[in-house]
Amino acid sequence: MRFDIISAVPELLVSPLSHSIMQRAQNSGLITVNIIDLRSFGIGKHNQIDDYQFGGGAGMVMMPEPLDRCISELKSERSYDEIIFMCPDGKRFEQKLANKLSLKNNLLIICGHYKGIDERIREEHVTMEISIGDYVLSGGEIAAAVVIDSVSRLIPGVLNNESSALLDSFQDNLLAPPVYTRPADYKGRLVPEILLSGHEAKIDEWRYEQSLKRTLERRPDILDDIS
Amino acid sequence: MRFDIISAVPELLVSPLSHSIMQRAQNSGLITVNIIDLRSFGIGKHNQIDDYQFGGGAGMVMMPEPLDRCISELKSERSYDEIIFMCPDGKRFEQKLANKLSLKNNLLIICGHYKGIDERIREEHVTMEISIGDYVLSGGEIAAAVVIDSVSRLIPGVLNNESSALLDSFQDNLLAPPVYTRPADYKGRLVPEILLSGHEAKIDEWRYEQSLKRTLERRPDILDDIS
Repeated sequence: MRFDIISAVPELLVSPLSHSIMQRAQNSGLITVNIIDLRSFGIGKHNQIDDYQFGGGAGMVMMPEPLDRCISELKSERSYDEIIFMCPDGKRFEQKLANKLSLKNNLLIICGHYKGIDERIREEHVTMEISIGDYVLSGGEIAAAVVIDSVSRLIPGVLNNESSALLDSFQDNLLAPPVYTRPADYKGRLVPEILLSGHEAKIDEWRYEQSLKRTLERRPDILDDIS
Repeated sequence: MRFDIISAVPELLVSPLSHSIMQRAQNSGLITVNIIDLRSFGIGKHNQIDDYQFGGGAGMVMMPEPLDRCISELKSERSYDEIIFMCPDGKRFEQKLANKLSLKNNLLIICGHYKGIDERIREEHVTMEISIGDYVLSGGEIAAAVVIDSVSRLIPGVLNNESSALLDSFQDNLLAPPVYTRPADYKGRLVPEILLSGHEAKIDEWRYEQSLKRTLERRPDILDDIS
């Protein structure tokens, strides 16, 4: 799977995508992450990519021309399953959408910065607008890293153990149960006895009960999603 | 404002916090970001920090002792307004919580990795559990970057123009209106005429209408929040 990411501040994206699981996924060829510096499509001597907004007001807006030229060049090289714009007014990113995107081949992700991108680029090129949550960030870069991380880990082979992702929160409309490791007694705080019993069926049952209890207490709204 | 962040993979956090707005905020002394490598509190020759989970199953769990020692040492140095654990089953992060956290002085953020952290650490030390959205990531690092970025930009002086953050999506339970910059005519796509009129009151009115329209179309649920 290939991710092309257009960014005005590509340096922001380097480290979240080049260590740990993301690094291994790239080294093994399971995913390709290609970060494109929008400034190389900038206008004039200073490679301008942003300008004041029409109508006045604080915050710069990313100009249509550099984005249009960058996106058009990328589109001429390959066809994209989706051209995604990261923005607070997009569709809310959830595990179901991560699952869906993990089946695609080529995704192009546009990171806004400053006050946003010129609306005409959204109309002209963008096929999917995604928000990672109801809050505002300095730019789309960290949001893009969220999407790439959560999608990549669902691709078979990226995690050492494929069943691991299937047992995560949200995959079954339940939050994950609590987890424990050694020592069994830490400063008088004990691991639940059932987990030391070796009785697999009972442990599964306990975990399911804990998941259900935690979901009812914290997020009863996601239970309603069961379909 | 000070952020201390405990991470098993601190390299992940370097670039999202050391460029653009976040870098300027640190250079000007408005925020301090201190990343602590959990491994330096690891056990034995190999600085072990994770182990198999009790009860079996895929995925390693972060051990209680290294975390306990790390958190306890930090707590002995200063008092924290909140000790935050980033996790999918936490309270959903939203703009209102970002606003609230931007008024604090010292935040300690714990990033989980692998299958999660030993539940006893959550019971013992954590005062607030935060989820940035209903999806699962490889670790809490990118999630911590989301929180730090969205909170920091609300601190007076971090953005060049303070009014900029107040006009963002969610601050008034509305999505932001579309934005435009030069050229006014890009390949036949025109900027709305009102924005070129210079009539400030009418432009404000148009933007409010656009915000309302966009919110009604895309996120009618946040309109209900008006209080």
